Amino acid sequence: METTNIPGYAYGQVNRSPVTLAELELLKQTVLFSAADVAALAQAGQVLAPQTDAILDVWYGFVGAHPYLLRYFSLHGQPDGAYLARVRARFGQWIIDLCTKPYDQAWLDYQHEIGLRHTTAKKNLTDGAQAEPLIHLRYLTTFIVPLTATIKPFLQNGGSSTDEVEAMHAAWFKAVTLTATLWSYPYVKEGQF
Amino acid sequence: METTNIPGYAYGQVNRSPVTLAELELLKQTVLFSAADVAALAQAGQVLAPQTDAILDVWYGFVGAHPYLLRYFSLHGQPDGAYLARVRARFGQWIIDLCTKPYDQAWLDYQHEIGLRHTTAKKNLTDGAQAEPLIHLRYLTTFIVPLTATIKPFLQNGGSSTDEVEAMHAAWFKAVTLTATLWSYPYVKEGQF
Ligand code: HEM
Ligand code: HEM
Repeated sequence: METTNIPGYAYGQVNRSPVTLAELELLKQTVLFSAADVAALAQAGQVLAPQTDAILDVWYGFVGAHPYLLRYFSLHGQPDGAYLARVRARFGQWIIDLCTKPYDQAWLDYQHEIGLRHTTAKKNLTDGAQAEPLIHLRYLTTFIVPLTATIKPFLQNGGSSTDEVEAMHAAWFKAVTLTATLWSYPYVKEGQF
Repeated sequence: METTNIPGYAYGQVNRSPVTLAELELLKQTVLFSAADVAALAQAGQVLAPQTDAILDVWYGFVGAHPYLLRYFSLHGQPDGAYLARVRARFGQWIIDLCTKPYDQAWLDYQHEIGLRHTTAKKNLTDGAQAEPLIHLRYLTTFIVPLTATIKPFLQNGGSSTDEVEAMHAAWFKAVTLTATLWSYPYVKEGQF
């Protein structure tokens, strides 16, 4: 997939993460992330890539149906349509990246950038958006559930066996939890991440 | 289960959570928590209660096998055995509470207390432990995966149908994510939780 034409997508062009690769390795161990998960995610990437739009319809439907979530794309109750559209394209790319990119220094760095983009440090800047200045951390963590639960039907659409679907789903859950964890860094008090 | 004889267990006797019941309601919506989950958790509580010790063996085995986790029960590389044992009893009670207690003000308050007990504010105090002063937030969040993955075989041991096991497992995942989210409060910068 050609990615350079997604406005605001800056993979490989951001500052270094304060989290080290050695620390990432321990987080991977904690979520039980193995070589089998890398393979399962690669397969998931193939299954999910052609369905990206349908997945984003579900996720945006979820956000749109809940005013307490839609507010983060809004200012004074007014959603910023351009903002929603631009973030959607990067969110689609994230699905692919999560499944197919090696979890190396560039990946780690971009996780930190995405975390920052949910906080006052960088939110709205990339898109010149008119919206709330911060997404509260509690929703990043709780989103692990809907992002994990809603992906399963899409994993089942690829003609894979039940065991393969289970393996892809387990790997996806681990990957989403790992990234949500990394994104919490800028929210956390000095030395407590 | 009689609970008053667990040293340091203080359910119903702690300070009020800074998180409101209205905010908890939105977090429950975000993890897709429904009346069906309450029922599935009640069933899970019955299935898991007689297996508490075996579950804790698995979780303590996981912590004990990873020096970067065991250090939180240790000082200068020396694990505090009494601390491990006392926390284990409260951890067992937590399994039952998570499944069977109503998620009301008392529950919310105790979630905040448990969060504090993982931080410099309260860690080690309850047990007079000799151990690291803080558990880093990144491990609380990543623990959602092992705590969710390892419970499934125990849910399968209760003679429930496959569908019931799936329902109990999904409800457990939601409940663990909800609590890990609430526990992050004391780690987070003012106004960003
Ligand atoms: C684990 C949970 C979440 C995931 C996986 C996720 C994913 C993403 C991704 C991939 C991006 C674009 C990153 C880029 O710029 O390349 C993004 C940005 C954004 N997300 Fe999230 N997100 C999560 C939680 C949330 C929540 C709970 C909300 C609130 C409804 C939210 C709202 C936004 C907004 C408004 C942006 C644009 C930030 C900016 O101004 O640059 N996200 N998210
Ligand atoms: C979602 C993840 C976690 C859950 C569900 C959990 C559960 C609990 C529970 C129920 C208690 C006892 C609460 C009470 O006093 O009544 C506790 C305390 C404790 N946990 Fe965790 N925990 C989690 C993450 C961790 C991690 C990653 C570590 C580090 C290995 C850890 C180490 C401890 C320690 C050392 C205590 C005792 C704290 C004190 O001094 O009072 N926990 N945990």
